[in-house]
Amino acid sequence: MRADWINPFIVSTISIFDTMLQCKISRGVPYLKKTHQPNHEVSGLMGLSGNAYGVVVVSLSRTLAIEATRHLNGNASGSIDADVIDLVCEMTNIIAGRANSDLEQLKMRIGLPSMISGKFHTIDYPSGVGIISVPFDTGWGPMSVDASIKEKTETACTS
Amino acid sequence: MRADWINPFIVSTISIFDTMLQCKISRGVPYLKKTHQPNHEVSGLMGLSGNAYGVVVVSLSRTLAIEATRHLNGNASGSIDADVIDLVCEMTNIIAGRANSDLEQLKMRIGLPSMISGKFHTIDYPSGVGIISVPFDTGWGPMSVDASIKEKTETACTS
Repeated sequence: MRADWINPFIVSTISIFDTMLQCKISRGVPYLKKTHQPNHEVSGLMGLSGNAYGVVVVSLSRTLAIEATRHLNGNASGSIDADVIDLVCEMTNIIAGRANSDLEQLKMRIGLPSMISGKFHTIDYPSGVGIISVPFDTGWGPMSVDASIKEKTETACTS
Repeated sequence: MRADWINPFIVSTISIFDTMLQCKISRGVPYLKKTHQPNHEVSGLMGLSGNAYGVVVVSLSRTLAIEATRHLNGNASGSIDADVIDLVCEMTNIIAGRANSDLEQLKMRIGLPSMISGKFHTIDYPSGVGIISVPFDTGWGPMSVDASIKEKTETACTS
């Protein structure tokens, strides 16, 4: 998996913490993830297609998702409720939007993001390619960006 | 797999033959496709994500792709060349664009289409769900629309 496929997601994730959330964030050491389950309680999923295809998952710990909701809304119930889900969707849409502008020159594009709540889901990563997990520590709890992207023999149809 | 997930692709395919190509087209009986290889020589691939995800393939026979190129460009070399590839990409982009407006209300979206030339490719369809193939006869040769779309437990992040 090429670093320039994952970097747009890393850069836009860090940028959201710096600007929108004003929360400190530090990147850990990437590793090869062995399970198809999300690392944390709430996750935004982005499907990629074009010159390469795959899935990128932004997975947030419960405390991080709740504190981010409190920061943006002024209050939070303390559980994974509709406000938290909205926030994770909004974050994922922003990350996807920013990443899309970098991915365009690589002839790749993200479809409609989705989100899952809970850790016991199986994510359909593409077959025959590893999942790289980039862990992050933030002021509000851990998170990760997990990517599995496969090169295609197809030619992207740019217009 | 729900019929309303595939219908937008069927409708926009027929519409392209009626309007852009002015070539007669008739739909055959859908069946469950057993292989992951495309049915015909040139194929446009559309990756879907959102409330459901999967792949839809528009696969054109060699004669059809070449005659469609001749119709639109005024001439064709008679082989699968760059003009034919451009045409299949253009057709796939138009089908994806029209299908996207119907899919929006189903909370699904197509990413960047791609194309493959040749029949000996393996298409990465989602696991655990069948591939429905809808065959078509046209005035210029056979084609098919093949779809494998899987419902997700995730929630689509509409903005």
